[in-house]
Amino acid sequence: MTRRIAVLAHGGFPDDAKTATGILRYADAEVVAVLDREIAEADPDARVADYHPDVADAPIVASSAAAPAFDALAIGIAPIGGGFDESWRTDVIDAIESGADVVSGLHYFLGDDPEFARLADEHGVELWDVRRPPDDLTVSEAIARELDTEIVATVGTDCSVGKMTTTRELYEAAVDRGVDAGFIPTGQTGIIVEDWGIPVDRTVSDFTAGAVERMLRERSDRDYLFVEGQGSITHPAYSPVTLGILHGAMPDSLVLCHEAGRERIHGYESVEIPNPGYVAGLYESLAESVAPTEVVAGALNTAHLDAEGAAAARDRYRSQLTVPVADPIRDGVDELLEAVL
Amino acid sequence: MTRRIAVLAHGGFPDDAKTATGILRYADAEVVAVLDREIAEADPDARVADYHPDVADAPIVASSAAAPAFDALAIGIAPIGGGFDESWRTDVIDAIESGADVVSGLHYFLGDDPEFARLADEHGVELWDVRRPPDDLTVSEAIARELDTEIVATVGTDCSVGKMTTTRELYEAAVDRGVDAGFIPTGQTGIIVEDWGIPVDRTVSDFTAGAVERMLRERSDRDYLFVEGQGSITHPAYSPVTLGILHGAMPDSLVLCHEAGRERIHGYESVEIPNPGYVAGLYESLAESVAPTEVVAGALNTAHLDAEGAAAARDRYRSQLTVPVADPIRDGVDELLEAVL
Repeated sequence: MTRRIAVLAHGGFPDDAKTATGILRYADAEVVAVLDREIAEADPDARVADYHPDVADAPIVASSAAAPAFDALAIGIAPIGGGFDESWRTDVIDAIESGADVVSGLHYFLGDDPEFARLADEHGVELWDVRRPPDDLTVSEAIARELDTEIVATVGTDCSVGKMTTTRELYEAAVDRGVDAGFIPTGQTGIIVEDWGIPVDRTVSDFTAGAVERMLRERSDRDYLFVEGQGSITHPAYSPVTLGILHGAMPDSLVLCHEAGRERIHGYESVEIPNPGYVAGLYESLAESVAPTEVVAGALNTAHLDAEGAAAARDRYRSQLTVPVADPIRDGVDELLEAVL
Repeated sequence: MTRRIAVLAHGGFPDDAKTATGILRYADAEVVAVLDREIAEADPDARVADYHPDVADAPIVASSAAAPAFDALAIGIAPIGGGFDESWRTDVIDAIESGADVVSGLHYFLGDDPEFARLADEHGVELWDVRRPPDDLTVSEAIARELDTEIVATVGTDCSVGKMTTTRELYEAAVDRGVDAGFIPTGQTGIIVEDWGIPVDRTVSDFTAGAVERMLRERSDRDYLFVEGQGSITHPAYSPVTLGILHGAMPDSLVLCHEAGRERIHGYESVEIPNPGYVAGLYESLAESVAPTEVVAGALNTAHLDAEGAAAARDRYRSQLTVPVADPIRDGVDELLEAVL
């Protein structure tokens, strides 16, 4: 039986709820509703299809109580810092009391919340904090390059530019072509979708590269591994996670993800995003002495542009990177996949 | 009354026991003995002065039981991975049973060891795991550049090249000159010496930059802050820590630390250290879009060379960096301090 999921995204759907979008697009489950009280209160008939024509449709409702029956509530937004918004408490409690599990990728662990823990216990449901890393991680041994598998990693000019989507689309397209491929998730959405993985942004910084290396070892029987990147090498807060993935994964090739028109780091408006060509060079320079690699393709998120604007942005991005580029959602990933296989 | 410390460094003194050396050189305490059973068994009369003429002298003994009376046992070696070596257990137990506290910078927390915790409780002594970070860390707000203080950070071409020593020497020399300076420790030795600080290599990777920023805020009443660097931007395992410090501290100037003759990453012999001039450029390029900075001086560790070799290495390093260079221990830090003040 397909698992029925409700996805909480209050005030964030669709643009600030990338976990919700990832679940809608990729999870092997039926999404029965998206919770966004701002949208639902403004338009009681709102549906996902009004915002995302290219993912599974579902009604947008104001609360857990207003959703059709579901087996699990997934927290589908990740505010900066990963805290729990107290205005969500009623939805989580209602979900637990209705017998549903709760899946969360927040830094705040639901399982450590006394009220949630007690209620979950009482109702026999599971609180799955996907961002809780294994407690036996160690330092990287710098051996990923020696594994008998071709490693492709996405990197980015910022967070929330489409790295998870690009990685997942590349992986699924490779599988469709008959390639023996694996997906290496590093963040909450990817882990929820893959039902496996280590939340790299939650690991001890000394063990970040080692956490990535461990996942690669476990899946090294595949011919190709597609590694989900995080943040950006020029992100003022998340850059350590980015670099841990680059040095831990030792990728054979990189796909640089960028959002057309994005000029400043999301949430850090004082920090400019350099020219994507410069950022590509930085990734290559940092990898050089550890495990040399190259940006062989560019993924451009043009969701906010019309067809003409997207074409112009694509041309500009291609001239900045001098490699094949495409918007994985608008154009598909065939051209990008050709560049990495 | 000056606190009496015994420093455990079995099999590592002096070259692989940088915490021991840091304590001997900088801590405001009397070191009554260094524990290194390999040295003590080969030479029962061995002393610290045989190895380090420039730090406080003390006998080298084989065990806690063989040391003069002390108030605290400090773990003075940090093996790769930060594990606890079971061969040290007797020394820790003997110390606790003699009424001494135990101070440790290992990733393995002594306070979580059931036997140590029980004995410490029984004997009323403290187990201080300096590498246990605060549990309320958050992401960086990228505001260090706005603080009304001049921030100087050390960076390196590898771990164990002298960043803690260089930072501490610069800080002490600045204070000696009457500068209102502060020291920002980021690793176990610095924290033990300063009796304050956050172990940045043990923070959640998303919060690494934020941890550094928090320390800077707390000490931002000083005119100058000297930030201890960690690892290297090209280190295959520790680079996330390095980058978190660079982006979290937003330093106004950098001092690049290198060990003369070191060609490969310590413990990762397959990974070459690039030309120091190239590494300096990488640090500057990574800082550029977040908070521009420059390598204004170079600290060269020449401990393994004679005077002639040191002079030649210094000349080579100066030509690679094209900034003032010195060995902080051999030459003093006057010239380096001039470059950063």
